[in-house]
Amino acid sequence: MAPQVVKYGAMEPVVLNTRLRLDRIRAARQVIDPQFLDTPLYRCDELGRRLGCTVSVKLETANPVRSFKARATELVTSRLAGQGRDAVVCASAGNLGQALGWSGRRRGLDVTVVASRRAPAAKLDRIRALGAELELVDGDFEAARERAAAVARRRGVRLVEDSLDIETCEGAATIGLELAAGAPSFDTVLIALGGGAMATGVGHVLKTLLPAVEVICVQPLGAPAMTRSWHERRVVTTESADTIADGVAGRFPIPVVLDDLLQVADDAVLVREASIVAGMRMLLEHAGLVAEPSAALGVAAVLEDRDRFAGRHVVTIVCGGNVDLDAYRRWTRA
Amino acid sequence: MAPQVVKYGAMEPVVLNTRLRLDRIRAARQVIDPQFLDTPLYRCDELGRRLGCTVSVKLETANPVRSFKARATELVTSRLAGQGRDAVVCASAGNLGQALGWSGRRRGLDVTVVASRRAPAAKLDRIRALGAELELVDGDFEAARERAAAVARRRGVRLVEDSLDIETCEGAATIGLELAAGAPSFDTVLIALGGGAMATGVGHVLKTLLPAVEVICVQPLGAPAMTRSWHERRVVTTESADTIADGVAGRFPIPVVLDDLLQVADDAVLVREASIVAGMRMLLEHAGLVAEPSAALGVAAVLEDRDRFAGRHVVTIVCGGNVDLDAYRRWTRA
Repeated sequence: MAPQVVKYGAMEPVVLNTRLRLDRIRAARQVIDPQFLDTPLYRCDELGRRLGCTVSVKLETANPVRSFKARATELVTSRLAGQGRDAVVCASAGNLGQALGWSGRRRGLDVTVVASRRAPAAKLDRIRALGAELELVDGDFEAARERAAAVARRRGVRLVEDSLDIETCEGAATIGLELAAGAPSFDTVLIALGGGAMATGVGHVLKTLLPAVEVICVQPLGAPAMTRSWHERRVVTTESADTIADGVAGRFPIPVVLDDLLQVADDAVLVREASIVAGMRMLLEHAGLVAEPSAALGVAAVLEDRDRFAGRHVVTIVCGGNVDLDAYRRWTRA
Repeated sequence: MAPQVVKYGAMEPVVLNTRLRLDRIRAARQVIDPQFLDTPLYRCDELGRRLGCTVSVKLETANPVRSFKARATELVTSRLAGQGRDAVVCASAGNLGQALGWSGRRRGLDVTVVASRRAPAAKLDRIRALGAELELVDGDFEAARERAAAVARRRGVRLVEDSLDIETCEGAATIGLELAAGAPSFDTVLIALGGGAMATGVGHVLKTLLPAVEVICVQPLGAPAMTRSWHERRVVTTESADTIADGVAGRFPIPVVLDDLLQVADDAVLVREASIVAGMRMLLEHAGLVAEPSAALGVAAVLEDRDRFAGRHVVTIVCGGNVDLDAYRRWTRA
């Protein structure tokens, strides 16, 4: 694919050679149910005061599946429906499965989701409630990925692979369009890093349209594979993943996604579990938001390096709010 | 003022003789900061399953002041700034004061808020944090209203009177425009009833554009003045108000607001405190939303009369999320 050249305002054209293309991301907006687009983006002064910087929240939890993932599944399922396909399979840590269930049901597709038995019960319950077939595996998200691939092969149906499949990156990238369109300007965006769909998607758009904005990916210390890979510029896998941030607990980075991430991210940082918990608590106490652990990674990153962000205007994407309430209450207790 | 005649689609023109006018409400959208407009409107299946009907949420908490009130204060302060005025006073149960503080700060106005000492500490803290002068009075919201009027007279500055001042109704009415524009269609809207700005504003728009939609106002049994007034078609005051729904705890309905409400509301119902608490808990558990007591009145109304709403599509406006966290945790504990 030829490098993409985009002119924006008076700035130098920015050339990125990722798998993403701005025209396709713009076109994606036409396909995604409006309930998932143009989500709230607003300054939260109280949170900012506590963190020592200006904080804006991009809120992806106020929709029927309580996460940003439906932006991707709307694309996937509309294409499948257009091709006359009637079934789809994915592995999911929980949010992609709900989103695929929602989008698939709307288009008459049979949806099968493979997930780890250890995924939050609330996420599994909601996948079932959407009418999807849910298959549980022992082991972690990587085991679910293997199993989902086998199911798709055997049945001859489309496998949706988060972060690898371009629609999953393009869907997430529509968040970037909204950030770039929204006033006022900001210095930094903090993006939860798992497989990399959101980071590469949002990063691609921002580095194209607002190249001065710093794109920082945030991952838990307990699941650092993609962050380590980014720093070493080669795929690094880990033996295990151990974090409450279930949505980003992969161990096997995808090479082409890493290639894209290397072009669009300015940094990738790791945060401690205690900071993730503190981040969830602050989002509840000072913003009135229920965030799942992955959605608190941005706040956690500021907590761990206040000097770095002091006085800056930071956007944090609150990417999901699907929690088991008992665990959530324990985490956010004063 | 001549009665307003509006044609919509193939339906009969609807004639309403309230103080509101659709053209002014539409024009208001141009003045209000976009952060407060086009708020999320989405179906919440899990909540609907528990309540036995289809439930859509109109979410007014994901903005800098965590309530719908800034729609009104944006109008008030932009007009004052246009007139070269430099100060403004209001009485507030807590949310109007925050909103006026936010909108006034943005336009360089000195904002004074008079509130009851018994208002939630979180609301009072946030009013102060916005740089407003906060004056606390003994007694309830009605005492704050008296005191604010005295302050405004003495200083010769504009007094913003919630529900009486047309901007407060027009601001809230912009929610109605968004409900009328949003697909899919719905049968009923449940609106928290306090002074009446939201009920008359949203009600006016819906009864004009979607007259088949049932407009139901919901008030706590412990603060029933406006509901009783609506049923008796005359102003009924109460000696006291006793409810956790601090945002709607007025005792002295305003006659012209009652006149408007009589034209746009199909019903006004009273709910118990226990139902309000259950409503807050359900919004947290089944929608992941932090709602203040007033914002749970709609769910409370369904809980108290499930048969009435069975199988219908109900929109509930989650109008605010400013809570004292200790009280909120107590209310929403399992």
